[in-house]
Amino acid sequence: MPTPTAQQLNAARRGLDGLLGLELLEVGESEVSARLPVREEIKQPAGLVHGGVYAAVAESLASLATWLAVVGDGNTAVGLSNSTSFLRPITEGTLHALATRLHCGRTTWVWDVRAFDDQDRTCALTRVTIAVRPARDQARPDGGPPSAA
Amino acid sequence: MPTPTAQQLNAARRGLDGLLGLELLEVGESEVSARLPVREEIKQPAGLVHGGVYAAVAESLASLATWLAVVGDGNTAVGLSNSTSFLRPITEGTLHALATRLHCGRTTWVWDVRAFDDQDRTCALTRVTIAVRPARDQARPDGGPPSAA
Amino acid sequence: MPTPTAQQLNAARRGLDGLLGLELLEVGESEVSARLPVREEIKQPAGLVHGGVYAAVAESLASLATWLAVVGDGNTAVGLSNSTSFLRPITEGTLHALATRLHCGRTTWVWDVRAFDDQDRTCALTRVTIAVRPARDQARPDGGPPSAA
Amino acid sequence: MPTPTAQQLNAARRGLDGLLGLELLEVGESEVSARLPVREEIKQPAGLVHGGVYAAVAESLASLATWLAVVGDGNTAVGLSNSTSFLRPITEGTLHALATRLHCGRTTWVWDVRAFDDQDRTCALTRVTIAVRPARDQARPDGGPPSAA
Repeated sequence: MPTPTAQQLNAARRGLDGLLGLELLEVGESEVSARLPVREEIKQPAGLVHGGVYAAVAESLASLATWLAVVGDGNTAVGLSNSTSFLRPITEGTLHALATRLHCGRTTWVWDVRAFDDQDRTCALTRVTIAVRPARDQARPDGGPPSAA
Repeated sequence: MPTPTAQQLNAARRGLDGLLGLELLEVGESEVSARLPVREEIKQPAGLVHGGVYAAVAESLASLATWLAVVGDGNTAVGLSNSTSFLRPITEGTLHALATRLHCGRTTWVWDVRAFDDQDRTCALTRVTIAVRPARDQARPDGGPPSAA
Repeated sequence: MPTPTAQQLNAARRGLDGLLGLELLEVGESEVSARLPVREEIKQPAGLVHGGVYAAVAESLASLATWLAVVGDGNTAVGLSNSTSFLRPITEGTLHALATRLHCGRTTWVWDVRAFDDQDRTCALTRVTIAVRPARDQARPDGGPPSAA
Repeated sequence: MPTPTAQQLNAARRGLDGLLGLELLEVGESEVSARLPVREEIKQPAGLVHGGVYAAVAESLASLATWLAVVGDGNTAVGLSNSTSFLRPITEGTLHALATRLHCGRTTWVWDVRAFDDQDRTCALTRVTIAVRPARDQARPDGGPPSAA
């Protein structure tokens, strides 16, 4: 499967990425970039971009890039953990994000995602750990016992 | 200031909490509970609730409860870090969350937030660290140098 | 294999646990407790117990308990991540630790470890994520490519 | 105060750094490097370098460098959190570590520490958050209420 372009991926965008307004810019094997216009709907009550937005953007970029790399082998990518540090608020303009791959093991991939403002000041840093699993396990990301439901 | 009720807080809801559809249930000094109906707009492409949603809900509960407790002293609450582990997917029904205060220091508060599904199975765990700062510092959560802009 | 007692495990103690002086107290399936006498050799330059000691104790307890539970099935336990928050210093007396299992999936276990002082005040909180892998993978905890060496 | 050299700092080494055998190599304002010979006493039972060692080394480097930078202003540096991901085991040779400063705010500094083996393969990644506080607060890193004892 040829890797889809950012444009193709944006056109197929749905779920939370669409709700937030995430726009992919470049989707490479070890780096992914994106941006998100700041608006009231992504803020917390004090008028700053909500911390969950930084976490969500990082999770999206790391998951997508890992998934694109492993799906051809019958695997899928499932988030294990997301650890975000908040350094500087953004109140207007655009939230930019760059995900960089730090490690690609057989079962675990690790990404760092830097979020920055229009002046290129780092505003949040996220470390995302993604599990690579056979695609049949997709509905049970933790490998836990199957749902009783 | 008397602590507002969950009902009053839900009525004033805006920003990301409103976009996601977060509903506060109980807002106490050391525990806060909330819920969020699962719908397509909060999922990732594979049909599971997006990891960023767990992080966002946890951040909202911990920040709100800390802020309510310190605002009367002229302080504000600003997120320092959010560390979420994903344990089990949710694909339908309701996402429930319970935030429990672990530590309330003079400058740092720590919360654990447990997200669970309709069968009370733990789906994600978040540790949120909140800084307590004088309210005048609100626009500079990290205490960094003032923006040049 | 019958689960060894804390006494048997302490007698077999070696490596970092021995260097630090860790003493196991109770080793159960979902809870493990231990203690560590505070001495100069485990402090940082300002005279407080070094942050790495809290991380190390938590890692030991979570890894040991997971390993004991899975080794009978031909599996091993390998640490994936360790996230410690420091809340209050300890300068003398004894460091106590209690590990509580939060999640035991097929491939991932999650533990919370609380470190506390002689007055039962919480001093550090650690979340430890342990991977469960077939024992033959032991030398490659991350599932990464085999060493070229 | 002129910044002491790595040699001077190694000569004054005590506490956990001495117990582990940490050797500082370069101590700069925004980067610090060090190394640690691998020996049985820093391993876990399976013969790999213990996860707590990576956390401890990272904590030492980040704390030291922050402290050196702020002590001249009457401040001190106290660890807030340490989040380590384990990527590849080390069983022999030397553990190398490089700490890089990501953020230096008025009250919070953030460092990334990369641990690698003799073949320069990344073995662990740690994010360390350090609080900068007036030196008189030294004994109460979390700003919590003073001990009743």
